[in-house]
Amino acid sequence: MQNVPTRAVALLLLSILAQPVGAADKTPAPFASSDTPGRIVGAALTESRAWDKLVHLSDRIGHRLSGSEALERAIVWAEAEFRKDGADRVWNEKVMVPHWVRGDEATRIVAPVKREMATSTLGGSVGTPQGGITADVIEITSMEQLETLGDKVRGKIVLVNKPIFANGGPDRGYGSGSKLRAHVPSKAGKFGAVGMLIRSLGTADYRLPHTGALRYTEEDPRIPSAAIAAEDAELIHRLLESGDTVRVRMELGAKTLPDAESANVLAEIRGREKPEEIVVIGAHLDSWDVGSGAHDDGVGCVAVMEAMRILARLDLEPRRTIRAVLFTNEENGLRGGRKYEENYRDEMERHVAAIETDAGGGRPLGFGVTAGPGAVEMVARMARPLAAIDADEVTGRGGGADISPMKKHGVPQISLRPDTTRYFDYHHSEADTPDKIDRGDLDRAVAAMALMAWSLAESEETLPRVPPEEKAP
Amino acid sequence: MQNVPTRAVALLLLSILAQPVGAADKTPAPFASSDTPGRIVGAALTESRAWDKLVHLSDRIGHRLSGSEALERAIVWAEAEFRKDGADRVWNEKVMVPHWVRGDEATRIVAPVKREMATSTLGGSVGTPQGGITADVIEITSMEQLETLGDKVRGKIVLVNKPIFANGGPDRGYGSGSKLRAHVPSKAGKFGAVGMLIRSLGTADYRLPHTGALRYTEEDPRIPSAAIAAEDAELIHRLLESGDTVRVRMELGAKTLPDAESANVLAEIRGREKPEEIVVIGAHLDSWDVGSGAHDDGVGCVAVMEAMRILARLDLEPRRTIRAVLFTNEENGLRGGRKYEENYRDEMERHVAAIETDAGGGRPLGFGVTAGPGAVEMVARMARPLAAIDADEVTGRGGGADISPMKKHGVPQISLRPDTTRYFDYHHSEADTPDKIDRGDLDRAVAAMALMAWSLAESEETLPRVPPEEKAP
Repeated sequence: MQNVPTRAVALLLLSILAQPVGAADKTPAPFASSDTPGRIVGAALTESRAWDKLVHLSDRIGHRLSGSEALERAIVWAEAEFRKDGADRVWNEKVMVPHWVRGDEATRIVAPVKREMATSTLGGSVGTPQGGITADVIEITSMEQLETLGDKVRGKIVLVNKPIFANGGPDRGYGSGSKLRAHVPSKAGKFGAVGMLIRSLGTADYRLPHTGALRYTEEDPRIPSAAIAAEDAELIHRLLESGDTVRVRMELGAKTLPDAESANVLAEIRGREKPEEIVVIGAHLDSWDVGSGAHDDGVGCVAVMEAMRILARLDLEPRRTIRAVLFTNEENGLRGGRKYEENYRDEMERHVAAIETDAGGGRPLGFGVTAGPGAVEMVARMARPLAAIDADEVTGRGGGADISPMKKHGVPQISLRPDTTRYFDYHHSEADTPDKIDRGDLDRAVAAMALMAWSLAESEETLPRVPPEEKAP
Repeated sequence: MQNVPTRAVALLLLSILAQPVGAADKTPAPFASSDTPGRIVGAALTESRAWDKLVHLSDRIGHRLSGSEALERAIVWAEAEFRKDGADRVWNEKVMVPHWVRGDEATRIVAPVKREMATSTLGGSVGTPQGGITADVIEITSMEQLETLGDKVRGKIVLVNKPIFANGGPDRGYGSGSKLRAHVPSKAGKFGAVGMLIRSLGTADYRLPHTGALRYTEEDPRIPSAAIAAEDAELIHRLLESGDTVRVRMELGAKTLPDAESANVLAEIRGREKPEEIVVIGAHLDSWDVGSGAHDDGVGCVAVMEAMRILARLDLEPRRTIRAVLFTNEENGLRGGRKYEENYRDEMERHVAAIETDAGGGRPLGFGVTAGPGAVEMVARMARPLAAIDADEVTGRGGGADISPMKKHGVPQISLRPDTTRYFDYHHSEADTPDKIDRGDLDRAVAAMALMAWSLAESEETLPRVPPEEKAP
């Protein structure tokens, strides 16, 4: 049970002391007289084995889509590593996951010129009928445009051709693009379109298709959908712009098999005083079936694993329990995150915070926090020992897909915030491989995760919980 | 015939006046009192159709390897455009070219893990025997290392794994890498290797293979050879580094058919005073069979074509003849450049200069010049009207593959020098498409080519010829 009166007092104090985060905040860091933060950061930066773990996961296991044999091997491996690394308790919890398989895939322009396109079927897409489909292309850049076109897309292939930018904000970034990727297929299907293509949601143009999930509605026709390389979308655009009709052929062998058995992997460092109170640190072990899932989310998994190893190695017994969770099926179902919430629904009040790292292996900048008033400032004070590695910048709006089902229970949502300038160059593509990761950045991520997990678990006061108005997913 | 006495006087004057190129040179620009340089530059920057030509060549014709039907269509198109654009004379000259075809291609790691590799067979490579070849990999980074290994590579696949860098200089740039790509296959074959792989000669890592030519010797066994993506080379490196034996399977369907008929395309603006004296401006119309050959060398071709159109449109009749040559087969044979020299061997003394643009569509910086003493300074003075577009920097060492056969006759060799910082990101790959080209840069290239061609053709004095000691290819 949470110590509510203490929290209330803390909140009151915080609201009095509240001021902008940063150097101006003269409140002492919570563990200013302890050498533990320094030991944690020092160990992470000097003896991390995160790179070796990442290389094993990427090279020896490879990509690991839900339902794949590789994901099963990753689960077995992660559990064994947690044990070897000294966690107090290690186990897994069964999760049934979607089992989508890509199959062969090809899309090509057949008129007015013939050109193969670099193609990646969207996760969850149906395949094309035997022999493929061939239809004229109609280009859109927004959902509004599709709705205006309405029945005019009947019999056509809808191409979503909207570039995204690395720091593109709400309308030009990955978020807006991924909404189109998710929802255009059903909307276009509803209006009678026979197929959907989307310009890859990537921020570098190297003829590289980027995959990702769609979300069919229950009621609308399911149409085959694929990402194409930016270059191919630009070519179609130029051909259409010149007044030509552009015909495209899609042959996608994708299909969805019966759900497969998978698992979340869990490991704990047991709290010395309030073992029933939990700080979750999480990442997701599954990936798309391209590249080796190094950025997404191999780095997150190995940062969580190494954070746990280092905390165990230093023999720290924080006040509360730290629970690492490597979620399954983040990419195409979120079944792992949902299952965790389902399994621990009755204990959500005792979950004092959840931290997720799932934004790639760029240099850590700090944390994002979604919780009650004053939480950003509390986390910022906890992050101060990361100042020398420039990872102490704490902002509002944090969280992660896998921990999001806990939000409705008020569990404070925290994300590790790396530099994502180049993340979407590689994300969900064949180029998401470990050579893109800087070892130093990875070790800094381990330091940040270990320090924050320990601080939240050790702190006398807990973070104010997510207020009701922010609990909507 | 060349006016030798005038040239001698000019050279004498120049040697007296010689000083570092640039602002310090107070010698008047050669056409300081003429409005023609301004008219040329102005027209190129305001009414260029180079982009439209590039889009046509890239999108409607596409890549155009020697022997392909697309190259034939490009030749017909270029000839028609030259005519339409008002050249005084347009014709083509037959060239027999190698006809290599890629066929299906796949390479994969089969042990200790299974992984498909992104593959591009090297141009000219033989295919693998029916059923492919499977062998252990041995990694090298230099020819010396291969020579030291000698017979130890017998029965193995040799992997050349040396990264290149955009401004890598003689040992770390494209030049050194392309020598390994050209010559390792025969050397490794001589020592009994069964296959050759090379880390792609590219400067960006997006799982993108970059093709290019090899050069088999007459006497050594010809082994199948392919480029793989940087990521795949790095994976093999990590696996080998861990002590594992790495086995790779290569299945390449490449073959060389009988030589095919192709052609150089030529167009002239006839000189008013010395029509028999020639300034060549050239680029190559063929490309590799990947991407659409936009950077290499679509931009060069359309810059030459537009330079000619603008000079014709302005009704300029320079003192000498300007001859545009779109060479065939630069990429895998240089038969076009060789044939031109063969056809005009007796007139090489009357070739006063040759300019080639074949370093991509980056922003033009100026020119490179290989010729006799004082030539750099002369070209720099001619380039002064390009100062406002920052394209007036002239350096030593210029030329181009297609015009290089004229060097032994002393013909001054000039190259347009663009910024190549990103050229090798895309070069010889599926990503070499027109979206990589900035329209403004392309128009600046037209301005630079048109101005320099006209200046060399109009100038009373000609450039000092390539001295004997620099005539070796």
